[in-house]
Amino acid sequence: MRTLTKDRALVEKLFHPMGVDGVYARSQQYEDVVQALQALISRRRPAGAEVLRFPPVMSGRQLEKQGYLNSFPQLLGCVCCLHGSDAEIGAAVEEANRGADWTLQTSSADLVLSPAACYPVYPLAAERGTVPENGLLFDVAADCFRHEPSRDIDRFQSFRMREFVCIGSPAKVATFRDEWMVSAVSLAADLGLPQEMDRASDPFFGRVGQLMAANQVEQALKFELLIPVRSEGGPTACMSFNYHRDHFGKTWTLVQEDGETAHSGCVAFGIDRLAVALFANHGTDTGDWPESVRALLRLN
Amino acid sequence: MRTLTKDRALVEKLFHPMGVDGVYARSQQYEDVVQALQALISRRRPAGAEVLRFPPVMSGRQLEKQGYLNSFPQLLGCVCCLHGSDAEIGAAVEEANRGADWTLQTSSADLVLSPAACYPVYPLAAERGTVPENGLLFDVAADCFRHEPSRDIDRFQSFRMREFVCIGSPAKVATFRDEWMVSAVSLAADLGLPQEMDRASDPFFGRVGQLMAANQVEQALKFELLIPVRSEGGPTACMSFNYHRDHFGKTWTLVQEDGETAHSGCVAFGIDRLAVALFANHGTDTGDWPESVRALLRLN
Ligand SMILES: [Zn+2]
Ligand SMILES: [Zn+2]
Repeated sequence: MRTLTKDRALVEKLFHPMGVDGVYARSQQYEDVVQALQALISRRRPAGAEVLRFPPVMSGRQLEKQGYLNSFPQLLGCVCCLHGSDAEIGAAVEEANRGADWTLQTSSADLVLSPAACYPVYPLAAERGTVPENGLLFDVAADCFRHEPSRDIDRFQSFRMREFVCIGSPAKVATFRDEWMVSAVSLAADLGLPQEMDRASDPFFGRVGQLMAANQVEQALKFELLIPVRSEGGPTACMSFNYHRDHFGKTWTLVQEDGETAHSGCVAFGIDRLAVALFANHGTDTGDWPESVRALLRLN
Repeated sequence: MRTLTKDRALVEKLFHPMGVDGVYARSQQYEDVVQALQALISRRRPAGAEVLRFPPVMSGRQLEKQGYLNSFPQLLGCVCCLHGSDAEIGAAVEEANRGADWTLQTSSADLVLSPAACYPVYPLAAERGTVPENGLLFDVAADCFRHEPSRDIDRFQSFRMREFVCIGSPAKVATFRDEWMVSAVSLAADLGLPQEMDRASDPFFGRVGQLMAANQVEQALKFELLIPVRSEGGPTACMSFNYHRDHFGKTWTLVQEDGETAHSGCVAFGIDRLAVALFANHGTDTGDWPESVRALLRLN
């Protein structure tokens, strides 16, 4: 009980409840750390990376084409709206006023809430034509959504993700990911965060998904940097290092100069998880954090 | 045709299409201006205002309680997800793979996309107890969503809003709004933006809505600062100055020390509209902007 209380106390210090589990209003102190983390990651941006910032919604058709619905149907949020004539919308509102669920009258707006920051970048990259020999590098960010209501301190429904994405030859992508796995470990160490790198798998849906997850682990397609955040249970994945092989290249016809399908990989920073990890490990007041951490984050 | 082409050229310089009208990926130059605008507004933050940053989603129940569905049903986006057992979700995915619309199987997650930045603040303020004599001041921001697909340069479905909110006596709120109407005019002038202040109304739905809108204009409850953005048609509302009277106070039982229901008002900055207005008025390259504007935004 005592440890659970500690986590709730941290949540209450950093956030304000908004009536739905895993959805919080953020305090100024928390946002200052989020901004500082984003700026720190910007300073480590790979040379030549193009910066793109995405809104919290993206095309549902694009996401489905990438196979997300098959892999993670339980996590996806789509945007539904009242469509139709004024008379039809008016009738739905009147029914709602009589106590009916108005959302039953809605239909899809061909928009989903982005479940990861890198998904919109592949169709955009495809419009650039042939992937150059040196590959393509992107620095992307988005507010992401995954439908997993929870009161855990390390699991929000709405959260910020930052990613560096590499598209190119298998060798380019492998080097990009390997170098970032080293850089990320030292970045976390500089932030004073205890850590452990581990092979991982995505939470694929269903029985076929279990096979996909096992395959992902076996082929070392996904690594996660685990950092203690909650006071009970294991550490939390705060960064991930993903090799997609030719999945996005095939989907969006990303082709290299030699005619081969391009591969891709991404390094993802769970910005909110990293921010909470800093507070959980260094204390609820940034003024008390180690001087080296404050200096690295330029909190002074 | 020539002028339409000019607007499209600006969109293409600042944004990248994401496959849905009014939803864009943002370039670094554009985001730098957005950040600079946010920082400028922070420097003008009213003394004593509490900073809160909201995620792009909020409780659907809270928004409905505030009457949004009756007023703007055509604009609201709700978050729908596949609920149920693994077997049920699996069946929905299989149907989708056979070409069916998977969104028909979804149901509401009690979350909506926030249509304005200030809506989540009133229930939060109510938890603070009696409104103090000097009132409550908040600085809030959110990524907002309104379902109005458009290719217009000044109308996005997903956009950033920043607001200062005052809750207190009618006199406090009136003074707050009046002072900000003056400050906003000089802020826009300092940004080199041509402008015009006008009484306005919200796009209330239906015939009853037309009466509400007329009432709003007659009682001067809403003003907008209009700035030319599009090369055709009238200027665009880039800031608004709203007096809600006791609407939110009644809904959330916000009570003043003398026992009277608190009033509220807000000053809203359409961050994306202001950013596009700057590019539309000063040119597509921030390096060419007037030195005074660059200095005010600290772009140097
Ligand atoms: Zn990714
Ligand atoms: Zn407002």
